[in-house]
Amino acid sequence: MIQITVIQIDNYGPWTVTPNPRRESDLQALQSRLYGDLSLQFGAHKGLVFYTRFDNLIAITNGIDIETHKRIQDSIKNRYPITVSMGIASAETPYKAQKLATEKIQKHGSAQDECRKEILDFAGDSVLEEGYVQLAHVDINNITSTSTDLKNAYDTYIQVNEVQLKLIRELKKYGAMGFFIGGDNFMCPCNGMSEDDFISIFENIRKDTGIQLKAGIGIGKTAEDASNMADIGLEFIREGKTTNNCQVYTVNYDNYNIKKKPKKTLCPI
Amino acid sequence: MIQITVIQIDNYGPWTVTPNPRRESDLQALQSRLYGDLSLQFGAHKGLVFYTRFDNLIAITNGIDIETHKRIQDSIKNRYPITVSMGIASAETPYKAQKLATEKIQKHGSAQDECRKEILDFAGDSVLEEGYVQLAHVDINNITSTSTDLKNAYDTYIQVNEVQLKLIRELKKYGAMGFFIGGDNFMCPCNGMSEDDFISIFENIRKDTGIQLKAGIGIGKTAEDASNMADIGLEFIREGKTTNNCQVYTVNYDNYNIKKKPKKTLCPI
Amino acid sequence: MIQITVIQIDNYGPWTVTPNPRRESDLQALQSRLYGDLSLQFGAHKGLVFYTRFDNLIAITNGIDIETHKRIQDSIKNRYPITVSMGIASAETPYKAQKLATEKIQKHGSAQDECRKEILDFAGDSVLEEGYVQLAHVDINNITSTSTDLKNAYDTYIQVNEVQLKLIRELKKYGAMGFFIGGDNFMCPCNGMSEDDFISIFENIRKDTGIQLKAGIGIGKTAEDASNMADIGLEFIREGKTTNNCQVYTVNYDNYNIKKKPKKTLCPI
Amino acid sequence: MIQITVIQIDNYGPWTVTPNPRRESDLQALQSRLYGDLSLQFGAHKGLVFYTRFDNLIAITNGIDIETHKRIQDSIKNRYPITVSMGIASAETPYKAQKLATEKIQKHGSAQDECRKEILDFAGDSVLEEGYVQLAHVDINNITSTSTDLKNAYDTYIQVNEVQLKLIRELKKYGAMGFFIGGDNFMCPCNGMSEDDFISIFENIRKDTGIQLKAGIGIGKTAEDASNMADIGLEFIREGKTTNNCQVYTVNYDNYNIKKKPKKTLCPI
Repeated sequence: MIQITVIQIDNYGPWTVTPNPRRESDLQALQSRLYGDLSLQFGAHKGLVFYTRFDNLIAITNGIDIETHKRIQDSIKNRYPITVSMGIASAETPYKAQKLATEKIQKHGSAQDECRKEILDFAGDSVLEEGYVQLAHVDINNITSTSTDLKNAYDTYIQVNEVQLKLIRELKKYGAMGFFIGGDNFMCPCNGMSEDDFISIFENIRKDTGIQLKAGIGIGKTAEDASNMADIGLEFIREGKTTNNCQVYTVNYDNYNIKKKPKKTLCPI
Repeated sequence: MIQITVIQIDNYGPWTVTPNPRRESDLQALQSRLYGDLSLQFGAHKGLVFYTRFDNLIAITNGIDIETHKRIQDSIKNRYPITVSMGIASAETPYKAQKLATEKIQKHGSAQDECRKEILDFAGDSVLEEGYVQLAHVDINNITSTSTDLKNAYDTYIQVNEVQLKLIRELKKYGAMGFFIGGDNFMCPCNGMSEDDFISIFENIRKDTGIQLKAGIGIGKTAEDASNMADIGLEFIREGKTTNNCQVYTVNYDNYNIKKKPKKTLCPI
Repeated sequence: MIQITVIQIDNYGPWTVTPNPRRESDLQALQSRLYGDLSLQFGAHKGLVFYTRFDNLIAITNGIDIETHKRIQDSIKNRYPITVSMGIASAETPYKAQKLATEKIQKHGSAQDECRKEILDFAGDSVLEEGYVQLAHVDINNITSTSTDLKNAYDTYIQVNEVQLKLIRELKKYGAMGFFIGGDNFMCPCNGMSEDDFISIFENIRKDTGIQLKAGIGIGKTAEDASNMADIGLEFIREGKTTNNCQVYTVNYDNYNIKKKPKKTLCPI
Repeated sequence: MIQITVIQIDNYGPWTVTPNPRRESDLQALQSRLYGDLSLQFGAHKGLVFYTRFDNLIAITNGIDIETHKRIQDSIKNRYPITVSMGIASAETPYKAQKLATEKIQKHGSAQDECRKEILDFAGDSVLEEGYVQLAHVDINNITSTSTDLKNAYDTYIQVNEVQLKLIRELKKYGAMGFFIGGDNFMCPCNGMSEDDFISIFENIRKDTGIQLKAGIGIGKTAEDASNMADIGLEFIREGKTTNNCQVYTVNYDNYNIKKKPKKTLCPI
């Protein structure tokens, strides 16, 4: 079971053009900061947010309770000219969870309903206590040498967009999601998927486009734990340590031997 | 002639995993803030930045000189753990300008060259003194009622991604670019394109997907002026004021009668 | 027992002038953002930070463990060009706690030691599990009508500085601290002080300067709880509800009847 | 002539407690970000802002016109839950200029008038076209070795507060102002003051407190130019290069030989 929170800016479209269209550079600054703040504030509790459409964001929130959601919602109201609504739900797959979470917002009214403000609602009896997060950190092999340093910036950007769309369409078949996180990187909540599923998806994309993807898959109690494990898996592949140079590698937080720092001593980093 | 600046974080990929992979929520906060700051800092001089791939950004910078670019570059170094390189170029089409701008960075070394830092270089003899910006602000008709309030958050997101890819592929044929700016909105630098070009593109997309787009096209000396005019054009279409309900409308800053506020008086807003 | 964390930017002075003095507006943006981020990140765990000297900050951190400190320390390193060291200690009075906390940093080297980086150390066996925070939110009576709207901005600023210095000198006699938090407001960690102590301090300041202060005193398990209670106390005084118009009023979180919102329902705010 | 802008958050006090007192860590984040943004946005045009009381700020704005002020004011409205008013004025001394600037806001109503919003007004016929900025960057000699590394964090903070109050009282006699800018640093707009005036002030403070101050004084067309020159002067003193080890040194931008980077080449920094 993965817990997903859907976050929606209340009545945002109309606000951006009232009384007149607001300066675009300000709106971009506003939206990117909101995303940055939500990243830090959910991140403070080991959650992970994806910017999605900027006015509608999707977050993995295993281990984060209602009160913490409420505190983040309040903090946005206290520092921004807009407010946000949140729907929370858990399910076996990320896709299903976000669907249920979306419904918890939608049932209270339209995204452009002037009266619907700061909804905070969740599906089921309460937030998830058990459960886990499975995340695949996917990137494109050798993009710097084959695209960034070779092609123009916009063509590389188109290429990344093409890969993204193929990836998210393939992932949806498995009830998984995919989000662009910058550069040539995608973060994919994928509870229930196997390594073979990814190998098969990557093979399809390679045949179609000639582009080879790889994925570190991480499993943990929280989005942060899973994300850290996925990163370690990805480094493992980059260093050529996988069997038969396999481009998918899974690390489970429970089995990963984290070096524990001894308590009560200096921690130089 | 439009002036484009390509901005690239220096040696970013390696930094994100040195000495170990850094926490993803921190990286997302870092990238989104960098984008927000660049938006405000170029915006202070009427430029407009697109986040593109977050580590490679594209900006419209008509009217912004080298010294101002240098000051922004310094400001990033003074406040971030990373530095940025910038290439600047002008051309008849946005696509061509970004291509020339990319080359000015690439010739100094790889994006992942440890020694290549804070490049600031421009094509031609100097930055553009004449020239203009043409921007189309495109959005999807009725997305709130047909998708946001009806479908789940992720499916609406996929739909926007699909439209985006179609739009940027079509625009490229005209030497234009397209960038997602949140919600269901795209901002498209499109010097040299006609209204008919957009009508034709939108018709192709409508046939393919059933989705109807509209575009306010703005023309001005700077990205901000053009963007403001595009917004006014879009509002004009939304209010049903165009002839035959045409879904494309152009506003030129030079012909637009801005109400001048009398000098030296109170400015209540 | 109150828990205090002293936060120090590592080797900051030399960095600001290497290789040449950095632009002052950038340094001010850097410092104020660092303070803002620390406020949000400690605030996510109900802590409260004071900017103090900006490169040396003092925080109330009851209930915040070492791992959370470490995560905040990492997050700063991941997003800023500088790193921070932290010393943590608990004591009966705020002054004593910050003294012990400072020593935990100092023993690892000078603030301008190039090699001393990201110290994280704490006094005692572990962080505080029991304990409480007592906070006085102090402000100046009628400053808007008597100063802000009447005098020039700088003279009001001087007046606030004068009050601040008197207040912090008086508070130190009781082992308490005082920090300016904007406007005419001071937040004073004051475990162990009585209402009479404040009445006496305010009387001294009134005799000296003609300025009347008031204080809501809040008591709670965390800085946030105490701060919220202090705010409620201050509102109580503002509304003239205290006996004999007393300018000091205490609210204890344990006795305060917070209206609980019913679970599992819409939360319009 | 120096140009000063006084910036005031509109009706801020009441907002912070409506409908209930807002979380203090959020308010601190809000205020510090506003200050950081104003620093960057005025800084983009070579201005310099001081946080002063956070809800009432003072900026040096030589060379910054009304339209730019208006654009910054709009940008704050577009991204914050509050708005700001601005008064602008020029005079021979900084103190006089801020006094005139304050009056331009006050005449439109109280800081806590619900209806007074986004005032933008200036004294005189227009903003200053000629004029110059004189800034003294003052710091405390050897504070790291004598205080930061030796005393506890709070006692060093008190010491800096004491020095600050003495300094601003002395400066006022000359029509100059003094602002704390972090660490042990003060930035003092001081048009019209001589080096001897500073030597005399520092001597008074040394006799009183045993603390020796030093000052780099910078003169330039804008706050940024003056500030950069002041920094260079301060470094000059730190390196022991002044005659008779004098603790005050002036650098005028007009006479300072800035190494010009050749145009049209790579700019590695």
